[in-house]
Amino acid sequence: METLHWKGNELLLLDQTALPLQERYLSCRSWQDVRRAIAVLAVRGAPAIGVAAAYAVVLAARALVQGGVADSAALLTQLHAICLDLDAARPTAVNLHWALAKMERRAAELQAENDPALIVDALEALANAICAEDITVNRRLSAYGAACLCKAGKKLHILTHCNAGALATAGIGTALGVIRALHARGLVNMVYADETRPLLQGARLTATELHADGIPVTLITDNMAAWVMRTKEIDAVIVGADRITGNGDTANKIGTYGVAILAREHRIPFYVAAPISTFDLQMETGVSIPIEERDHREVRQFQGQASAPADVAVFNPAFDVTPHEYITAIFTEAGVISEPDERQVTQFFQKKGVVL
Amino acid sequence: METLHWKGNELLLLDQTALPLQERYLSCRSWQDVRRAIAVLAVRGAPAIGVAAAYAVVLAARALVQGGVADSAALLTQLHAICLDLDAARPTAVNLHWALAKMERRAAELQAENDPALIVDALEALANAICAEDITVNRRLSAYGAACLCKAGKKLHILTHCNAGALATAGIGTALGVIRALHARGLVNMVYADETRPLLQGARLTATELHADGIPVTLITDNMAAWVMRTKEIDAVIVGADRITGNGDTANKIGTYGVAILAREHRIPFYVAAPISTFDLQMETGVSIPIEERDHREVRQFQGQASAPADVAVFNPAFDVTPHEYITAIFTEAGVISEPDERQVTQFFQKKGVVL
Repeated sequence: METLHWKGNELLLLDQTALPLQERYLSCRSWQDVRRAIAVLAVRGAPAIGVAAAYAVVLAARALVQGGVADSAALLTQLHAICLDLDAARPTAVNLHWALAKMERRAAELQAENDPALIVDALEALANAICAEDITVNRRLSAYGAACLCKAGKKLHILTHCNAGALATAGIGTALGVIRALHARGLVNMVYADETRPLLQGARLTATELHADGIPVTLITDNMAAWVMRTKEIDAVIVGADRITGNGDTANKIGTYGVAILAREHRIPFYVAAPISTFDLQMETGVSIPIEERDHREVRQFQGQASAPADVAVFNPAFDVTPHEYITAIFTEAGVISEPDERQVTQFFQKKGVVL
Repeated sequence: METLHWKGNELLLLDQTALPLQERYLSCRSWQDVRRAIAVLAVRGAPAIGVAAAYAVVLAARALVQGGVADSAALLTQLHAICLDLDAARPTAVNLHWALAKMERRAAELQAENDPALIVDALEALANAICAEDITVNRRLSAYGAACLCKAGKKLHILTHCNAGALATAGIGTALGVIRALHARGLVNMVYADETRPLLQGARLTATELHADGIPVTLITDNMAAWVMRTKEIDAVIVGADRITGNGDTANKIGTYGVAILAREHRIPFYVAAPISTFDLQMETGVSIPIEERDHREVRQFQGQASAPADVAVFNPAFDVTPHEYITAIFTEAGVISEPDERQVTQFFQKKGVVL
């Protein structure tokens, strides 16, 4: 299974809404197709959304040029409007915004040449680079995470929430990348995967992904996490992230905040694995992160089947924010931020010379 | 909707597995019918299981006498074997055991009369009394709970887990009984109901029950509880119980333990509402409580629809144990046990002169 595949004139996206029952691909030939796929979660996971959005910009730029836009300034203006629209497809994951901004900057750099076709080619090259970089970034942060976790030298019991795996990225995944790197060293005893209601990314994606790779995985419902921590000797919790603010506060799939509290209560370290592109240093704390609220039917139903009265009120935030105090460390491709707070995050970016 | 209805020669049980889509009743004419209904959770909730089991003993005794058992000793011996079988239908809720023991004791008291028909009549009278008592007990403990919670005089935001309502008892419910009593005083602002995977008693039963009664309810997935506590000003958590040990440790639906930890982290009081029959004073601590593990398909599927690879490993404990340290108070029909521990529980039973 390949999460996304660029074919030069179309983006093939594995339709993750159909997993694990069906393995089918969506052919996206326009930026609108990609936007729709992002909105319905056919492609999801912060890094994968970023890559998909980059290709959406390529499709948009090419269509505009083929449609007769012959002026670079006009192309940029129209691309900007499209990027705003793409950016609005999902508000919480900042990687979407990051990729779009990067694409727009590249186009702006070439505006003076006044050669729209050149811009299209440059955008395609950049989208390919973003995709390729995600693969490298996954490997690097996974190696940092595994190096940090293998210190005890024992086979680990790990709990994870949602899906921060190959299906959430272009590579081996972030949280599941770390788990894959540990498994390669023979250090995974068992991964407990929260099923992650309402859309069951843990059951449908994480369990599928790990099971397919022969990594020991046990599926649990979300409300079992506390009892598993109490009775199954969990050594670590590892999750992905959708946005990390300047002080280390981390937005991730709804339920992550609760898991972080439960981990602390059981003295289990809680790790976040995420690329640098997940950081939003413009935002000081997690309080400002916009939290997407999704269709209430996701909670009242499962795959169209009712599980509650049709007219009962619902609260359906797709994400929550884990305050940095609960996070033991963040694994990135540039290294590990231990006990993240404003000072640690600032120092990390300064020391590594990382520019977002 | 009536949870259970005794018709003299049959027990009608609302089939709770079909709610909220269908309202249908199971006709139980034998103790085996009742046992099956308990095992598949057509009837569930510790108090309701106790009442149903009592009627199962009546059906068993009558069938034995009609089948030719003319000797009291033989009747008791055969009833004992049946009670053991009924008791094994669900291992965690102690009310099942409590009701069966009560029924057996009554039969034993009358053994000397050597009149099996008399025993059958006495057992029916006792089952009716257990059922009627549950209704009274619900009202009483709900009044104690409401009195405790109304002190602030403000309209409350309450979170509950699973279903400890009318559908779990013969009366108005335990946790939901307290909520009903508060609502009658105009003191319920909103009830947040955890959907309670895997079997969704919160979505299917609690949301349905409260919604039907016009009590404001908002349905959430289990993993939203922490975020709701952080963002929705929850004033109290109230849950039911399946078994409470001598030190106040409380077994309840899987997920309760996690909710209790989250409540403490957010400085929200955590209350247990349960009849005295839920106490198991023979058991010193919650460590000894047998935890039922149920069919793994409950987790791999969502209402019969596959949500995970069919052969992935699963952990499916139906209950967990909340250590007494997390419990602010237990509401019973004999009064409130604040900050329950071995000393408080022992003193409470001594002071009230309650004999189990």
